[in-house]
This record gives sequence, C-alpha cells and structure tokens, in this order.
Amino acid sequence: MANTNTYAKRRARVKQAPSTGKVQIIPIGGIGEIGKNMYAIRYENEILVIDSGLAFPGDEMLGIDVVIPDITYLVENKDKIKGIVLTHGHEDHIGGLPYTLPQLDVPVYGTKLTLGLVERKLREHHILGDCTLNVVRPEDKLQLGVFKVEFFRTNHSIPDSVGIAVKTPVGTIVHTGDFKFDQTPVNDKPTDYHRLSKLGEKGVLAMSDSTNAERPGYTLSEKEVGASIMEIFRTAKQRIILATFASNIHRIQQVIDAACHYNRKVAVVGRSMVNVVQVAQELGYLKVCNGTLVEVDELRSMPPNKAVIITTGSQGEPMSALTRIAKAEHRKVEIIPGDTVVIAATPIPGNEKLVSRTIDNLFARGANVIYERVSGVHVSGHASQEELKLMLNMLRPKYLIPVHGEHRHLIHHAKVAEKVGIKPDNVFIAENGQILEFTQKSGRVAGSVTSGRILVDGLGVGDVGSIVLRDRKLLSEDGILIVALTVNKETSQVVSGPEIYSRGFVYVRESETLMEEAREHVTKTLNKAVNGKKTDWSVVKNQVKDSLSRFVWEKMHRRPMILPVVMEI
Amino acid sequence: MANTNTYAKRRARVKQAPSTGKVQIIPIGGIGEIGKNMYAIRYENEILVIDSGLAFPGDEMLGIDVVIPDITYLVENKDKIKGIVLTHGHEDHIGGLPYTLPQLDVPVYGTKLTLGLVERKLREHHILGDCTLNVVRPEDKLQLGVFKVEFFRTNHSIPDSVGIAVKTPVGTIVHTGDFKFDQTPVNDKPTDYHRLSKLGEKGVLAMSDSTNAERPGYTLSEKEVGASIMEIFRTAKQRIILATFASNIHRIQQVIDAACHYNRKVAVVGRSMVNVVQVAQELGYLKVCNGTLVEVDELRSMPPNKAVIITTGSQGEPMSALTRIAKAEHRKVEIIPGDTVVIAATPIPGNEKLVSRTIDNLFARGANVIYERVSGVHVSGHASQEELKLMLNMLRPKYLIPVHGEHRHLIHHAKVAEKVGIKPDNVFIAENGQILEFTQKSGRVAGSVTSGRILVDGLGVGDVGSIVLRDRKLLSEDGILIVALTVNKETSQVVSGPEIYSRGFVYVRESETLMEEAREHVTKTLNKAVNGKKTDWSVVKNQVKDSLSRFVWEKMHRRPMILPVVMEI
Repeated sequence: MANTNTYAKRRARVKQAPSTGKVQIIPIGGIGEIGKNMYAIRYENEILVIDSGLAFPGDEMLGIDVVIPDITYLVENKDKIKGIVLTHGHEDHIGGLPYTLPQLDVPVYGTKLTLGLVERKLREHHILGDCTLNVVRPEDKLQLGVFKVEFFRTNHSIPDSVGIAVKTPVGTIVHTGDFKFDQTPVNDKPTDYHRLSKLGEKGVLAMSDSTNAERPGYTLSEKEVGASIMEIFRTAKQRIILATFASNIHRIQQVIDAACHYNRKVAVVGRSMVNVVQVAQELGYLKVCNGTLVEVDELRSMPPNKAVIITTGSQGEPMSALTRIAKAEHRKVEIIPGDTVVIAATPIPGNEKLVSRTIDNLFARGANVIYERVSGVHVSGHASQEELKLMLNMLRPKYLIPVHGEHRHLIHHAKVAEKVGIKPDNVFIAENGQILEFTQKSGRVAGSVTSGRILVDGLGVGDVGSIVLRDRKLLSEDGILIVALTVNKETSQVVSGPEIYSRGFVYVRESETLMEEAREHVTKTLNKAVNGKKTDWSVVKNQVKDSLSRFVWEKMHRRPMILPVVMEI
Repeated sequence: MANTNTYAKRRARVKQAPSTGKVQIIPIGGIGEIGKNMYAIRYENEILVIDSGLAFPGDEMLGIDVVIPDITYLVENKDKIKGIVLTHGHEDHIGGLPYTLPQLDVPVYGTKLTLGLVERKLREHHILGDCTLNVVRPEDKLQLGVFKVEFFRTNHSIPDSVGIAVKTPVGTIVHTGDFKFDQTPVNDKPTDYHRLSKLGEKGVLAMSDSTNAERPGYTLSEKEVGASIMEIFRTAKQRIILATFASNIHRIQQVIDAACHYNRKVAVVGRSMVNVVQVAQELGYLKVCNGTLVEVDELRSMPPNKAVIITTGSQGEPMSALTRIAKAEHRKVEIIPGDTVVIAATPIPGNEKLVSRTIDNLFARGANVIYERVSGVHVSGHASQEELKLMLNMLRPKYLIPVHGEHRHLIHHAKVAEKVGIKPDNVFIAENGQILEFTQKSGRVAGSVTSGRILVDGLGVGDVGSIVLRDRKLLSEDGILIVALTVNKETSQVVSGPEIYSRGFVYVRESETLMEEAREHVTKTLNKAVNGKKTDWSVVKNQVKDSLSRFVWEKMHRRPMILPVVMEI
C-alpha cells in the first residue's frame, strides 16, 4: 500500500508540474468565438486567470439562457490559482463569475466600475458575501504569486477598461483587453501609449482583440456619435427616445450632455439601463447636470420638446423596453406621432431581423426612426486593422495570440500581423483548451485540457446536453405525438387506448379525421404486433413508432417526435 | 320566395360591382414584407393579378417550410380573373404558383426564362399538365379583358425581368417589378428607357420596388462583380469554389466567362444550381464555351489550378452544398488547403450567423475565403435612392404605391418620392388586403379584403396556426413532461402510474433523482385530489399540471409543457 501511494503521488507531481523556464497560456474560452472570454496563464504551479465571461446562446441552443466555459481544468487546479483579473465590465468578460467563483473561490481584481458591475451581479446571485473583490487603479502593480501584474488604460465602449501586462520569469505577456484607439474619448483618458511603448521595448507575447480584424482603416471616435446626437437634438421637434447598450456609459453621457445643452429632461427606462446608470453615477463615471434626470412619469407633464427617454432594446430583444414600446405594450411609455427614436447601436449578428421589426413597428406608430443604416449614431468599440497594426507596432510582440474573435477574425488578425512584420510562425491561431507553451526562445502547442461549453437553462448548469437540444429541435419543427395505451401485463391485452395526443403538430379540432385515421392505423399495428403472453412491449413500441411515423410522413410529409406510452396493470 | 331571390341577387350585384370610372389595386401580399408578392388590379368585374410569390418563414414560424398569401379574395372572385402576369422568376414572385394555380385555374403570362422556371416548379408539384403558361416577349402587348398589358425590359439579378404597364379605362398603372438601372448589364439589354419615358408622358400610377430605399446613391453594375471575379481567377493558385444565388445567371455567366478565359473547367454542384443552369442553357440565357462544363468527378483528375466549382449555399443554408463542403460532409467535394472559396452574395437578414459559420469552417479547413465583408464580389439587384428618383422622374406618376419592402423601406421610398416632387398625399403606404381605389382625380383606401399569411408545413397548407406555433415554441424552449396514469373509472383508483416521461427537458439518466422527486410530488397531488367516485379527472389533470409546473419552476426555473394523460379502464 505504501508503495502504491508514493508512486501515485510522484506520478501526480510529474504530471502536474511543467518544466522550469516555460510559461503556458491556456484559453479556457474566447477563441473562435466572441464570448465567454477566460484565459489561464500558468507558470510552474501557479495560475493567473484573466476574465471570466459568458456567451449568449446560438440559435441552435434552444431554450438556453447563457453559455459559460467548461472550467474543469481550473477546478482541478484551483489551489494553484492566484486570482482572476478583469479587463472590463462587459458580460463576455465578467458574466461567468456567478458560476465560476463558487467553484474556484479565488480573489478577483478589477477597476472600480468593472467591480461595481460585478458586485451587482454577484448580489443578484446571492453570493456577494462569499467573494473577495479587490479594486485596482490602472497605475497599480500587483504581485500575485510569481506573477507581477500591471494594468494600462485603454479605450473601449465601457469606461475603466484596461489591458493587462503579466510579468513572468519567462517574459512579459500583454493582454490588450477589448480596445480601440480613441484619440478623443468621452470622459476617459486616451490609451496609455507610453506604458504600451515601454512594454514594447523589451519584447512581449501579445494576446490581442480580433473583433474588427476584418475592417480596414480606423474605428471612429465615440465623439463622432456625440456630434450626431447633438444634431438630432438640434432638429427634433418633439420627444427623443434613444436606445443603446446599457453599458455604453460614454454614449449615455453624451445624450445627457446634449439634453443639458438643449434644456431637456431625461428619464431612464429599462431595468439594465437603470442599474448601470445608477452604478455609474454612484461611482462617478456619469456626470449629470442638476435636475436633468427625472422619473418617466414626470415627462407626461412636460412639453414633448423638453423630454428625452434613454432606454434598452437597441438589439430588438423581445422583452426589452424599446421592443415593448414599439409594440405598444410598454406600461409607461407609448409612441406619440412625431417622436424621434434613435437606435444608437449596430445589430449584433443574429439580431438583424429583431431590430428591423422594431424599426418597422416604430415607423408604423408615426415615429421618425434614426438608425445606423441611415445615419451615424453608432461606432464600434473595437480596433480596426490600422489600429491593430498600431498596437502591434507599439508592443512589438515576439509572439501573437489573436484572441476575442471567431475563426475568420483570428485569421484576418494574423494577416494584419504579417503586414507589420510578425513572423507567421510566431502567430498562434489557437483553440479553446489548447496548452500554448512558451520558452524565451520558442512556442508550441503542448497538449490540451478539458474545455467546451456549459449550457445554463434556468437553475440548471450543464444538465442540458446534445440529446436534450436535439429533442427540442425535433419538437420545435413538427411537435410530438403521444400514443398512450394500458395493457394487462398477464394477458398482454390492450385494456385502454390507444389514444393519440398531439402538441405542436396540427390543431386537432381542424384535423379530427386525420387523428382518427392515425388511431385506427396504430390499432391495426398493435393487432398485428401483440403476441399474447410473449409480447415484448419494447419491440411493439418501436413498431408503433415506425409505422405511425411512416403514416404521418405519407399523409403530411412531417416528422413529429413519436412517444409511445404503455401503462401496465 | 321569388322576391327574396331577386333581393339577394340585387344585393350581391351592388356589393360586388365597383362604380364605373374607378380602378382598384389590392395588394394580396408584398407590402410590409419582402416576400409573397401578389397584387390584384380590378376594374369593374375584371381582375388582373401581378405575380404570385412565396415568403420564407420567420424565425418564430417553427417548422414551417414556406409562407404564401391568403388568396380568399381571389378564390371568391376567380371567375373575374383574366390572368396572372409575372415580372420575373424569383421565388418571391413565382413561388406561390403551385399553391394558387390549382385554386384559381387561370392562365399565366411571363417571359421565356420566367416561365421556364415556373414550368420546372409546376412539374415538381405534378400540376404542370393542368396549367396554361403563355410566353410573352417584352415587346408584346396583351389584351386581357379590359386590361391592355404591356411589358418593358428592366435589369435585375435574374435575366428576363420586366416591368408591367396595365392600361385601364381610368388610366395606366405601371408596376416596375424588381429593378435596378444597370448601365452595363451582363447579357441583358439595359432597361427600356424609351418605353418608360413614353409611359411617363401621360401620367401614370406607379407601384415601385422599395427594397433598397434606405440606400443612398446608385447600386453598382453587375459588371463590377465580373471584374472582381476576373481578378480572383488571375491570382488564385489552386481551385476556385464560388457560391452564389442559383438564379443569378448573370453572375454564373461571368464565372463561366472567367473560366473560359483562364482555361479552367467548371463543375456545377447543388441541386437548385444544376436545375437553373440547365434551364438557362436550354433557353439560351447562359452561353458556355465548348467543353467548359464538366461533371464534378472529372475535376479530380485535373490540376487544381484548372478547376472551378460553382455551387449553392451562399446563405449558409444548412442542407446546401457549400455548407456541407465546409463541414466536410459533402459526398463529392472536400476542401483542399489552398482552395479559394468565393461567397458572391450578401447574407439576407437573418442568415448572418449561418454564413459566418460557413466562412469559419472553410478557413479552418485551410481555404482562402473571399466574401463581401472583405471584397467586392456582390452587388444588389435592387435600385438605390438615386435610381428610385430616376424611375420616378421618368414615370412622373400622379400616384405612387411603394411596394416590395418592409414598412421602413416603404417609408424611405415615400421620402425619396417627396424629394422629386411627388405630393405626399399621393403616396400610399398601404397594407396587404387594403383596397386602394383610384379615379382619374383622386385615390383613397376604400375598404379591405381578407388577407394574411398561410403557413405551409410539408403537405399541410394552412393547418398550422398560432396555437400549434405557440406549442412548438414552448416545446423548443423547455421540452415536455408527460404524466401518465391509468385509473379505474368506477372506483377512481389509480391502478398504474403515475409515470413521468420527458423529452427536451433534462437528460433523464443524469437527473434520475429529480424525476423521482417529481413523480413523488405528482403522487402526493393525486392522493389529495382524487375524490373517490366523484373524481372529476379534468379537474385533477389541471391540478397535476399546476402543481408539477410549480415544482419544476422552484427546482429548476424552467417551464416545460406538461401533459397529463389519464387512461381509464
């Protein structure tokens, strides 16, 4: 027994300790996707985690609320984790925390606004008391185990965004975070070019945002949106209703500034918008001139040319405020003909039709709708190709891991990198779960860890897998037929039924004949299949299923799910 | 009796005959949507129908194959219909014919290619023999009842497109069809500007394409795509695989021309592409230099720099050739690293994610993918704002009905019309089913007819309504729980069950405890609810449903459909 134990321990040690002089980067999520960003950096027996995001479900993930990465590797190594450092407060970077923190129990580090948003989230999940949140300032330096962690200010579509430099014994790893180079940012200072340049003096390994790697040129400054907003305020004759991302505090600031300038009052509508505005105001990220913010009910008593509503729903989300306003289903706000409605956002891929429908509904109610297709009321928060080049020219990385992008974005980012002289061999198009191992001289894929996506449906985390999703897909297309019968288990005689129930198949009242025919068909199949005492009901069930399936296909060219239920007495 | 009869007849006559000197335009479909175009023009007791299209189902129409307009009005008046005239061969203009023709039994008129595509469609539906198709040339004039019908050549993304002028006793109605002004069209002649101008001399009522009314400027010529294709052929070192809309014969022509020029052979892959290429070749709309078209198997024996594949799947459609090629699931074609794949199309709203996934898959297999986002391989087939103005300036319509657009497109089209001097009061933002009635002096909405959408699912036309769709939606989100029990109808004793079956809810093997708890919960509910001989099982079923629903919500925050099945013996 003693021997076995020693052996097991030694093997465990050998397996878990990477060789000295090597640092590993393991994307837990965020590669080949825009969502669930989470990266582990490991040096020997210490791990640092950057971000813990969620992803929104794809169309094929029926009924799923959110998606989080599989963190098996981190859970198995949780005693080695020194902390989670956050780049900024977007859901795809912090939204996984309510699920990962209870499993990992490690301290979290982030800037003030980022942690303000995390705090609210953890409170909603009733786990705030169990978590350790540490506010850092961009100029702070942290020593987390072997890792010396430094931050640098960046510009993005949410304030208080930072990039992270992690100094390890092998060299410095720079994670840009989500960024653009905004030369005229709103409220924020510009990117810390000096820190970036300094980091670039010694050669680094860079992980950089690939979201807009397909776009040539530069991304416009958020200030440009401000100019468009001012122009809208100048010309609008009645109310202005503006929808944008709740987290885009810069844009909200510009709307509030325009309202101050034109003596309008602003009401904030929509739960997430109200939340973010409150957090941002409390923490000093949103400056509101006195008396500008009012309750939505107060707007009723004001002339329309004095009223502004800032709201959610810029993505046409079915339950959001703007969607409900557009459908005249909102409790407090209804469109008055002549209202100017501004949708200050681009549809995220997949939301195009929802957004179009909202625009159509608003037009139909007499609103004048201003949206991206016809006016400049949105700019991206991510760097375009020329900015990616600038970042690479400043950082001069030896190695580049394009992150934060679907596969084609990573490829385009690699092409951009080649143009500024980074050797193609030194650019790693990675996959989630891969162990990318670097020495001072070389980098390679050194294996992989468990990775993947965990689907969250209601309170269930991971209990909906491919079989359940396949069933949901089948059910969604042609519904279900349930064939119920009761049999005597001694004689195998059918004592009740068969009855056929359907859901999502046809409207039964209008298809009585068909359902009656189907019942007769099943009865015939049963008469043939039932074989007295020797009846094998699992076989009979399959026969009923097959024959009813054929019958329905021939009659209707549909393939509902068929579920035979045999009750024995 | 005689009296009653006379009265009824007179009433019927009064009701059905519109007053002399009035013409009615009734959009059966195509207003407020891009799809199922169908317009009725009525003068006294004669009706002319323009187009008979289908629409593709929205995301919320789970399991639906296609959508056609409700043609109750036309069926009720079918003896008055003089014919259906077609503008061009796209599905949203001809795809409804297999469903409408058997009900209406009227002759169809269209240009050669349009009817070639209709013919193939009707043959597939086994109704070709029962239909009368009449080929017209753009210069033909038809007398259909009181209507004098003339055609004029237009340019669009399918050859042989025409606009239609209908001369009625009240005045001339011009339907532009889908159009752009392509000054350098491929194969086709340019729009017949002289005919258009001539029509404009006398004042008309115009119905005009609104698809691109949001876009400023001009739509580029299809020839521009040809230049991009040539450039791709010049530089591609290995195979070229190009996906586009099957019906875009101009683009297919340009690919074939490029192949001829660079001595490459072309294989056509994908059922609809093979069909269209065959019809277009037979009818002389596609010119192929000798020996250029080969079977896909023949490509294997050729050097990669001599091979081209033209295929379907530019919209990422799950079962299309390119999608299967990208997923390495195609029977005959697989990606070889170094292949150049060209997606010569823009994603139709709603397809963005499918297209992106295909691009990602292709990149991951080593292809170099060229798509709209990064290169000019697609132009629209619809007129932008300046072309809409040109059309209006040539036609000089007294009245305009913007057609072929979602609501916001119609609104933008109206704004464009205002800019060229059409009185806002004379522009009709209509709705499907409205009766728009015009005299020589005025126009008004004079009522409405039955209209709407009919969902086609397999062989079922109209048997899937809102209840079935609602059920499919519920089933798709959280699945179904079936609670089955057998009871003695004399004693109300439960003799078997309750058993709980689930589909699309949780994977039962991993959630045995939960399902067992749920069963116990139902048993308890039953024990309380069953009331000896007086048991009302419909009441008990509701109690089981409610209590199980609450149980599941508390445990999991999910709302599966719950179906209690009580078998009586």
